[in-house]
Amino acid sequence: MPVIDMKNTPVKTGSIYPAPYNAEMAGRSSLRLGDVGGLTQFGANLVILEPNAKSSLRHWHLNEDEFVMVTMGTCTLIDDTGETQMDVGDCAAFPAGDANGHHFINKSTSEARFLVVGSRKNPETATYTDVDMMVVLQDGAAAFSKRDGSPLPIHPDGENT
Amino acid sequence: MPVIDMKNTPVKTGSIYPAPYNAEMAGRSSLRLGDVGGLTQFGANLVILEPNAKSSLRHWHLNEDEFVMVTMGTCTLIDDTGETQMDVGDCAAFPAGDANGHHFINKSTSEARFLVVGSRKNPETATYTDVDMMVVLQDGAAAFSKRDGSPLPIHPDGENT
Repeated sequence: MPVIDMKNTPVKTGSIYPAPYNAEMAGRSSLRLGDVGGLTQFGANLVILEPNAKSSLRHWHLNEDEFVMVTMGTCTLIDDTGETQMDVGDCAAFPAGDANGHHFINKSTSEARFLVVGSRKNPETATYTDVDMMVVLQDGAAAFSKRDGSPLPIHPDGENT
Repeated sequence: MPVIDMKNTPVKTGSIYPAPYNAEMAGRSSLRLGDVGGLTQFGANLVILEPNAKSSLRHWHLNEDEFVMVTMGTCTLIDDTGETQMDVGDCAAFPAGDANGHHFINKSTSEARFLVVGSRKNPETATYTDVDMMVVLQDGAAAFSKRDGSPLPIHPDGENT
C-alpha cells in the first residue's frame, strides 16, 4: 500500500549536531515519510516546529537540491536576503551549490509544519552560515568539523559526533 | 530569492500522450515549482485536478522514486490494490521499479491539488498499466510505444510524439 500511515510513522526528535549546537534544536521534530514509504533517491520529511523552534542551523548544500512547502501555520524563512514569512502552500527552492544559507523559524505562537524534500548525494557537504562548522555526510555517517576541516572541540555537555 | 512566486508561475496544461490518450487528460494542469526554483535533480510539481480529471494514465516508473502529498480537496488514488481516498496532508510513496501502476482521480465536485515529487533519471521508462503503452524519456525527449517496443499507430486526431 503506497499510502503512508502517518499516525504510526515514528517521530524523530533530537539533533546530530555537536554540542553546544544540538541544544538549539529543541522543539523541532520530523517524520521521515519518504523513508517509511521505501524511497531512497530523495528524502521527504515533514518537519514540525513548536513556537520558537528552528528547522536547523542556517546552512547550504553543496550537491543536493532542496524544496520546501509549508503545510501548517507560518514559518519564517531566514536567508542571506533577510526574513520572509511563509504561510500554508508557500514554497521555496534551494538549488545545490547556491551558498545562500537558510533555515526556518517558527515565530508564531502555534505549531508550524513544512514538507522538505532533498535529493541524496554521497558524499554531501553542508556548510553552516552563522557558526564555524561544516559537515561531510558519507556512507551514512556525519563528520562535523570547522570550515577549515579541523575537528570541533568536544563540548563537556555532549558528544562531538 | 528562494521563495517561489506561485502567482506568476506558468500553468502547464495539455498532454504529451499520443492520441487518443491525450484527450483523457482534460481538466488536469500543473505548476512546475521545482523548475521555476532552479532545481534539476527532482521535479516538484503542483498538480491541479478539476472534478473528474485524472493525474495521468495509470503507470509506474522503472528508475525514479515518486512522492505525493495532497494539498487541497480530496484525491482518489487508484492502484493495484483498489481505490483509496486521500485528503489534505495525506501522503503516498511509489518506489522506483515497483510495478504497482497508480494514478489519482478527482472524484469530488471541487478542485483538488497535490504536490508530486519525482527524481530525474536519464533514461527513464514508464509503463502504463491499463493500456498497451510505455514511454522512454531520454535527453528531454519522450518516445511512446507499445510495450513490445513497436510504434504506436498515428491517430488521426493527434500526433504520435
